[in-house]
Amino acid sequence: MTLPPTPCLVLDLDALERNIARMGAYAAARGLALRPHAKTHKSRMIAGLQARVGAVGICCATLHEAEQLAGAAPSILLTSPVVTPDKFARIAAFVAGGVDLAVVVDHPNSVPALAAALPSGGRLRVLVDVDPGGGRTGVARAQDAVALASAIAAHDQLTYGGIQHYCGSDQHIPALADRRSAITARNAKLAETIAALSASGLTPQVVTGGGTGTHGIDAEAGLLTELQCGSYIFMDQDYGACELGGAAPFEQALTVHATVVSANHPGFVTLDAGIKAIASDAGSPRVLAGAHPDSRYAFKGDEFGQLDLPDGAERPAIGSRIVLMPSHCDPTVNLHGAYHLMRSGVPEGLWPAQGRGYGGDI
Amino acid sequence: MTLPPTPCLVLDLDALERNIARMGAYAAARGLALRPHAKTHKSRMIAGLQARVGAVGICCATLHEAEQLAGAAPSILLTSPVVTPDKFARIAAFVAGGVDLAVVVDHPNSVPALAAALPSGGRLRVLVDVDPGGGRTGVARAQDAVALASAIAAHDQLTYGGIQHYCGSDQHIPALADRRSAITARNAKLAETIAALSASGLTPQVVTGGGTGTHGIDAEAGLLTELQCGSYIFMDQDYGACELGGAAPFEQALTVHATVVSANHPGFVTLDAGIKAIASDAGSPRVLAGAHPDSRYAFKGDEFGQLDLPDGAERPAIGSRIVLMPSHCDPTVNLHGAYHLMRSGVPEGLWPAQGRGYGGDI
Repeated sequence: MTLPPTPCLVLDLDALERNIARMGAYAAARGLALRPHAKTHKSRMIAGLQARVGAVGICCATLHEAEQLAGAAPSILLTSPVVTPDKFARIAAFVAGGVDLAVVVDHPNSVPALAAALPSGGRLRVLVDVDPGGGRTGVARAQDAVALASAIAAHDQLTYGGIQHYCGSDQHIPALADRRSAITARNAKLAETIAALSASGLTPQVVTGGGTGTHGIDAEAGLLTELQCGSYIFMDQDYGACELGGAAPFEQALTVHATVVSANHPGFVTLDAGIKAIASDAGSPRVLAGAHPDSRYAFKGDEFGQLDLPDGAERPAIGSRIVLMPSHCDPTVNLHGAYHLMRSGVPEGLWPAQGRGYGGDI
Repeated sequence: MTLPPTPCLVLDLDALERNIARMGAYAAARGLALRPHAKTHKSRMIAGLQARVGAVGICCATLHEAEQLAGAAPSILLTSPVVTPDKFARIAAFVAGGVDLAVVVDHPNSVPALAAALPSGGRLRVLVDVDPGGGRTGVARAQDAVALASAIAAHDQLTYGGIQHYCGSDQHIPALADRRSAITARNAKLAETIAALSASGLTPQVVTGGGTGTHGIDAEAGLLTELQCGSYIFMDQDYGACELGGAAPFEQALTVHATVVSANHPGFVTLDAGIKAIASDAGSPRVLAGAHPDSRYAFKGDEFGQLDLPDGAERPAIGSRIVLMPSHCDPTVNLHGAYHLMRSGVPEGLWPAQGRGYGGDI
C-alpha cells in the first residue's frame, strides 16, 4: 500500500489502541464509568474499540452523530440539549428502534415536548444538564435542577437518569494546579446541586462530565460517576502542552500529512495544507517530521501553509512529505471525515468518520 | 417543504443567480474571459449555472475538486501546482478521458515529470504560475517564467497555455484605493514578466488571475485576460466590508441557520452552531435575522455559539431560528458540504458540494 495523497489525516493505530487501553484501565481502577465523547472521532470503528476496552457507551454532540454511530457502542448519551420538534421526532425514532439513547435537558418546556414525541409505551432516559458556570448550556441554579429532575421523574414515559456537569472551558487550562483550582470551585456548586437533588429524593445515579484535561482531577474529586473524555485517543498540540495528570501520558496518534508544493525561496517552502485541511482555531500545527523540528508552520489561505525554516536548516525538497501535529484534533477530524490508518509507518486502509456533518448536509 | 434542521448552510437561489449574472455581464462587457473559482462552492450545479451565463470554464484548487466537477463546465484550470507522481497520474487520467484540464507549474522539474505521466499521444495545457510577490506559489523572477514557458513549449505533449498571476492576499484589503495601490505595484512586475516572455516569442495568450476583491481593478489595468473570481456568488462579511468596485454590489446569498438551544440567562442565549458549522478564521458571523440586529455572536466551542443581546433587546425564544452571515464563505461551505436551497424563503431542496474533502478522505 502506498502512502495516501496529501493533505490527509493519518491515524497511528498502535498509539490509538494504547491510548484507549490506558484510559480504560484508569477509569476501571477507580470504579468510574467511561463514556468517551465521539464528537472527537465520529467513527464507528473507534467507538467499537472503546466499547471493547470497557466503555459503557459513547457520548455524541449531535443527533446526526448518534444516528450514524448507533449500535457501534452499547449506549449513547446526546450531550447537547435538543429543543425543536424535528429533532424530538428523530429522538423518538431511537426509542422506536430500541437503541439505548439518553438525552439532556436544561429547560422545563423540553420535558413535556420530548415526552409527547415518544411512541406510545416507549421510554426515554433523560438527564438534567447542569451549567458549571460557563453559561453554555445547563440549568443555572440548584433549584432549577430539582424542578427539572422532578418533572422528568414524574413523567411516565421518561426515566430520570441523573445529571450532566461538563466544564468545557476548563479542559485546556495549561497548569494542572490552576485546572484543579477551577474545577474545585465549580465542584462546590455541583455538590450543592447533588445535595439539593438528594434532599428531594432525586439523588442522581449518574453524574457525567469531565474531559481529557480534567479527568484526573475529576477522579480525585469523586463527584462524577462517569467520564466523557474524548481527545485522549488522538491528542493534539493543545492538550500536549497541558500537564494532564490522571491516566496521562497519552501518545500523539493523529497527524496531518502535507506535501511541499512550492520551493522558490531560500528560507521557506509552501505546503498543500491550509485552513481547509487543519483546524486553525487553536493556532498553527507543529512540525513532527519531514523538516527541521524548529521549522514553523503558518496558515497561508484555504489550501496552503508556509513552512519557515530556521537559519541554516536544509530546505525540504519539492514533493517531499511533511508530518504535522494539529493544534486542535476535533475540528481537524471534522475537515477530513476519514482516517488513513498506519501501523509502524505502513498504511493499513481507511476508516470513515461517519458522523461528520449535520445530516442532510453531508 | 419544512425548513432544514440546524445548523445548516442555506443558499438563496435568487441572490445567487443575480450575482452570477452580474459578474458574467461585467466580464463580457469588458472582453474578459470569466473562469470562476470553484473552490468557493465545490458544486456541479453552481458550476453549471456559471457556465450557462458565459463562464469559459472553472478553476479548481484541488485535483479532487476537478475530478468531482469534471464535465460540469467546459474546461477546468487547476490553480495549485501538482508535484508528486500519484497526482501526475491523476492528471493523466483527465487527458486519457478527454476532459479539458489545464494545470500550472512553478518548478522546472515538474515539466518533464508531468509530460512523462501522460498517455501516449495525449496533450496537456500547462500555464506558468507567476508569484505576484506573496511567496505562496509561482516563479519568483521573470527569467524563471521564461525558462519554464520555454520548457513547456518545447515539449511535444504539452501546450504552453499562458500564465497565472493570482494576488490572493490583496483581495481582502478593505479600501478600494489601497487595494488599487497594491495591485498596481504587483502589476509592474507582471508587465515586466509578460514583456520578457514576449521578447522570447512566448507572449501569453492567457493571463489568468484576479478575485472578487480586485476584479474591477484588474479589468481597468488590462493585463489579465481571464478573471478567477469565486466569492462574488455567495458574498460574506469579509467581502461585504470591502468597497469592491467593478461589478459590485453583490447580494448576500449564503447564510448559516442556527437554533437557540439554551436560554437560561437574561443577556444572552446559546446557539447550536460553533466552529464545526461556521468558519472561524476571519472572525465571528453577523446576525441577519431572528434576533436584534445589534446582537453579537461569539464562538463557544466546536458545537455552540453565544449570542449576546444589546441592553433591553428581546431575548429570542428557545427553539427559535437565527440567521447568520459567515465571515468567510469558502471554508464555511467546506464544513457543510451541501446547500439547503431557498427561493423567497421557501425551501427548494439540496445541492451537494461534491468537491469537498481531498478524495480518499471523504
